[in-house]
Amino acid sequence: MKIAVDVMGGDNAPQVEVEGAVAAAREHGMSIILVGDQERIKAELAKYDIKGLDISIHHASEVVGMHDSASDAIRKKKDSSIRVAFELVKAGEADAVVSAGNSGATMAAGMYVLKRLDGIDRPAIAQVFPTLVGYAVVLDVGGNVDCKPFHLVQFAIMGAVYAKHIMGIKNPRIGLLSNGEEDSKGNELTRETSQLLKNISFEYSGYVEGRDIFAGTSEVVVCDGFVGNIVLKLSEGLAEAVSSMLREEISSSFICKLGYLLSRAAFQRFKKKVDYAEYGGAPLLGINGVGMICHGGSSVKAIKNAIRFANECAAKGVNQRMAEKLAENFSSYNNVESVPQNIAG
Amino acid sequence: MKIAVDVMGGDNAPQVEVEGAVAAAREHGMSIILVGDQERIKAELAKYDIKGLDISIHHASEVVGMHDSASDAIRKKKDSSIRVAFELVKAGEADAVVSAGNSGATMAAGMYVLKRLDGIDRPAIAQVFPTLVGYAVVLDVGGNVDCKPFHLVQFAIMGAVYAKHIMGIKNPRIGLLSNGEEDSKGNELTRETSQLLKNISFEYSGYVEGRDIFAGTSEVVVCDGFVGNIVLKLSEGLAEAVSSMLREEISSSFICKLGYLLSRAAFQRFKKKVDYAEYGGAPLLGINGVGMICHGGSSVKAIKNAIRFANECAAKGVNQRMAEKLAENFSSYNNVESVPQNIAG
Repeated sequence: MKIAVDVMGGDNAPQVEVEGAVAAAREHGMSIILVGDQERIKAELAKYDIKGLDISIHHASEVVGMHDSASDAIRKKKDSSIRVAFELVKAGEADAVVSAGNSGATMAAGMYVLKRLDGIDRPAIAQVFPTLVGYAVVLDVGGNVDCKPFHLVQFAIMGAVYAKHIMGIKNPRIGLLSNGEEDSKGNELTRETSQLLKNISFEYSGYVEGRDIFAGTSEVVVCDGFVGNIVLKLSEGLAEAVSSMLREEISSSFICKLGYLLSRAAFQRFKKKVDYAEYGGAPLLGINGVGMICHGGSSVKAIKNAIRFANECAAKGVNQRMAEKLAENFSSYNNVESVPQNIAG
Repeated sequence: MKIAVDVMGGDNAPQVEVEGAVAAAREHGMSIILVGDQERIKAELAKYDIKGLDISIHHASEVVGMHDSASDAIRKKKDSSIRVAFELVKAGEADAVVSAGNSGATMAAGMYVLKRLDGIDRPAIAQVFPTLVGYAVVLDVGGNVDCKPFHLVQFAIMGAVYAKHIMGIKNPRIGLLSNGEEDSKGNELTRETSQLLKNISFEYSGYVEGRDIFAGTSEVVVCDGFVGNIVLKLSEGLAEAVSSMLREEISSSFICKLGYLLSRAAFQRFKKKVDYAEYGGAPLLGINGVGMICHGGSSVKAIKNAIRFANECAAKGVNQRMAEKLAENFSSYNNVESVPQNIAG
């Protein structure tokens, strides 16, 4: 497996990406192609002893900025690092892409270059959240703002395959995010989706509420990208706000500060548990290939772990399994009369 | 001002409600009518010295349970404590209602008995959130799952009036919750709503993201009830998960525990800041009267504070001010040609 790393996208590019790639190659034996401005990459690589590591460079002359529009970036910047990285996958020279750049552009480039997986109308960005009992994958947290029920069913199946084969959960439970657990709750979209999910070949647990994400009652939480993005940013924002408020209170007296210093190890273990860097990036599911979208402010560790997970997705043939499950479920749907519409759209 | 307290609704009814009411009467000189089973209320009141306090009892023979459907409860249980409490307001015997019962039933009873405020199509439940710099009111966090743009505009105006007159914010800024700050983001609902909000007589700051709620960039955050309910429960769930994970880590060693004991004062100040009991309940905005919906598991302090805020809403004539602002804004809309539809619906 070879991973194409777009080194030009993140807030601290290409420094953090190159360092993360070197760490992934050294610690996990990953094979990596660094995609971006070759002079800058060479300058970064010169900082490390990379003898014996499988790291090569593929030049790309352009960069998609955080404020570029996704589709313009693809059409106008044909030699951008993110697009070139996906082209390497298309040409069979790489097996997966990792990028900390503009997530809309990454999604657009992935779809444009590699096309969608059979059975998928819209790819989704999945985000792994820590829960009280493990992890849950929430999707879509990306750009699919106005979804149809069959889109959410596709998300559910992709999420369940990801949970099973990458997160190692034998029988992942799928929850549909809603404003209450009773069947009478939900909006038009979720009520129709819920009916469809009752017939898929994975365990569907019905509606779950916002609090259930962290309680860990489902390993797969499905929602449209508008709601999912609010959930993602709210969680990040709340975690930051809690730390900031606590820090302020703790700094307000000597005794509190002393106490904090003593219990700091506990806070650090907690931080490690909830740190997104542990799982590195958010997989872009539903394209003909593997893409891992990292936070713009990713740390070296986040990049390293994203490369590791991207490699695992490619090695385990997650897309092939998704395509099989999609075909299996969508063909059976077409034969079920009780389903309110042809969910294959 | 006289506050009708439905004492039968909460998880620990009528005990907590009666104790909270006694505290509100004693500490803040509130005038209170306790509504519910008179024998049980008398038994609870016997525990306190209520001499000189303005507390009376109004008997109601039925109770709406947490699992009763809202509309059935109103139609079938005509002598339920929540419905009778609103009837007291209608009859002019009370000025506001406080309940820790079934929030759907409270909303339904309020609408059924008191009717909607002029200019309002759907009442909303507003929730005050602590932020890094103060407080923000988020609405709707209740039951309006599939909203039209003009519903959200009505929520925005009600929220702004509440923020101004009850939260004491001179020029409240209104943010529309979305999946990104740029105008190109949002879903069909928010894009149309955003155009409408640009013309109202309050400061509209555009789209805000999930993280901005806690950063405090807007004092009023508008969303539909599906999204708002997820936001509310996610925040509660995340806060609980963070406490629980931290507690586990802290208990794992003696030094960490000792450290925690020393810094406990900081944690307690933090807890007080984020404790919903401080602001008591979520106002039900948009009915012809004042209703305050409390958490089912409300503490005595939460009930006490909810009574205080309900009294303040009634005393300050918040509804009158909302009606004025709604009339002012909606009449001007009807004359603006650029508005895509008649937002008065």
